[in-house]
Amino acid sequence: MSRVAVIGAGAVGCYYGARLAEAGHDVHFLLRSTYDAVERGGLHVESIDGDIHLKRPSIARTAAEIGPADWVVCALKATAMDDARELIAPCVGPQTSILALMNGLGIEDQFAQWFPETPIFAGLGFTCINRGADGRIHHIDYGPVTVAHLGDEPAEVERAFALWADAKVEVPTAPSLLAARWQKLCWNVPFNGLTVTGGGITTDIVMDDPELRGAAEGLMRELCAAGNVDLEAHGSDARLDADAVVESMMTRTEAMAAYRPSTMIDFVEGREMEVDAIFEAPLRRASELSVPTPLLAMITGQMRILGRRAG
Amino acid sequence: MSRVAVIGAGAVGCYYGARLAEAGHDVHFLLRSTYDAVERGGLHVESIDGDIHLKRPSIARTAAEIGPADWVVCALKATAMDDARELIAPCVGPQTSILALMNGLGIEDQFAQWFPETPIFAGLGFTCINRGADGRIHHIDYGPVTVAHLGDEPAEVERAFALWADAKVEVPTAPSLLAARWQKLCWNVPFNGLTVTGGGITTDIVMDDPELRGAAEGLMRELCAAGNVDLEAHGSDARLDADAVVESMMTRTEAMAAYRPSTMIDFVEGREMEVDAIFEAPLRRASELSVPTPLLAMITGQMRILGRRAG
Repeated sequence: MSRVAVIGAGAVGCYYGARLAEAGHDVHFLLRSTYDAVERGGLHVESIDGDIHLKRPSIARTAAEIGPADWVVCALKATAMDDARELIAPCVGPQTSILALMNGLGIEDQFAQWFPETPIFAGLGFTCINRGADGRIHHIDYGPVTVAHLGDEPAEVERAFALWADAKVEVPTAPSLLAARWQKLCWNVPFNGLTVTGGGITTDIVMDDPELRGAAEGLMRELCAAGNVDLEAHGSDARLDADAVVESMMTRTEAMAAYRPSTMIDFVEGREMEVDAIFEAPLRRASELSVPTPLLAMITGQMRILGRRAG
Repeated sequence: MSRVAVIGAGAVGCYYGARLAEAGHDVHFLLRSTYDAVERGGLHVESIDGDIHLKRPSIARTAAEIGPADWVVCALKATAMDDARELIAPCVGPQTSILALMNGLGIEDQFAQWFPETPIFAGLGFTCINRGADGRIHHIDYGPVTVAHLGDEPAEVERAFALWADAKVEVPTAPSLLAARWQKLCWNVPFNGLTVTGGGITTDIVMDDPELRGAAEGLMRELCAAGNVDLEAHGSDARLDADAVVESMMTRTEAMAAYRPSTMIDFVEGREMEVDAIFEAPLRRASELSVPTPLLAMITGQMRILGRRAG
């Protein structure tokens, strides 16, 4: 049993935290706006993999109340990255590992700068989870969390995998964190981007429009090209197979029906969007590496401008 | 002096019609929603090239009241193309020529199908004209109308040029109508498109954002490439010089400051946008010609979806 601190208990943090609690771990949730509601009624998760109701989860209003944990599961929005260090620090001791359940490129490098002695992991969720108006968590589809280690040490990847051994979560492991990050962008960039620039549409509208579907594929191919040059620049042997990525992402998205990506929900609700983590960061990297990514550049410009009007 | 029927008396039609009236032509305006206001107060144009106030312009509620004209200046929105034939027909006699002051690719071919005996011309305005809330016409910047003939007969082009001889309008002539159409798309596609997909922004925001500016240039280069293959397919010797087009469009747009393209105004006001004429038509043509236009495809898909929500 591990002591787990869930920092950033939005839909994703609450869902995976609840799965870890269900598996017997000692899970502590850092809550803000939902503290009172969870204190009264517990934490409700409605999931295609089985509902969870934690009647009296361990909840805290500050990270200091939680203190050092074996695992810090950081599920903050990437837009809250400026606050992440302060929020996480009280939970980080000499035995702590950090698992970043977040979107974006370069997130783990940032954690490693802040906590140089701490093993850093990525958890890349491929899942459809939204928070309902009632504060309940709705897990609609998929659910795997791909775990990877900053440094790509196989033994460390195994240790992260072991945390999830008894949890009702499928946990593939990724030998290359960087490849896994680029691969995840191959979904987030087209589908978070095109649902927002379409004015707040669901993924099925993108899939049903031949030009937007083509643009999604084009964006994936640009990201794979940039990712492969990035992997080479990092001395990694891992490579993304663009055809396989396109095939897999399209097939999975087809099966999602009318899904609302998190960034699209942020957009229609006027909240800050994860533009830097999902769009600007890969574009900067592609530009540094001189990989042409015209579609990524255009959608990044569009998201940047649309993002200025929200948040 | 020519007898001129202005069909589609929006901002552009009223402005150029007023300039022709000012030059001494017998101009008749087909009006609908603004008939009563113009009957009461006349037609007011505020223009950087000198204001015009036509106290008692010749106005009509139906084209039949106007009857056959020497010139039909058709300034309908391209979205009204389905009604154009019926609206224009009463003004077309054996001596009539049609000048299409409209956006879009293939507009003149459509007119030629409907009126096979009638000389057809394009008037491609590069201008910033909006209608004010008070029904007044505001001519803010630029104003040239490039005239071209469907068939590219130099003598015919001269005849269209002669109509404007005494008007305070700069009238360049284009030896190739098709080249002029593609060149105009090089402004409309990026600037009408990116101001809409940016959520209803002005042209200066596009110009100031490095990625959107780059996307504008990328779109122009795709359009020039498609246009040149189209010209070749039509057996025309005319070609677009992409570098020169980019340079010219960027310089002119830079000088416009915060301009609101017509499609962007349609978008923010919830009116139907000219998606087919400006986006779908060149994309279809590029696709027929197998010219890759990934940026054009993406923005066309975006505009198509955004257009479904308006209108």
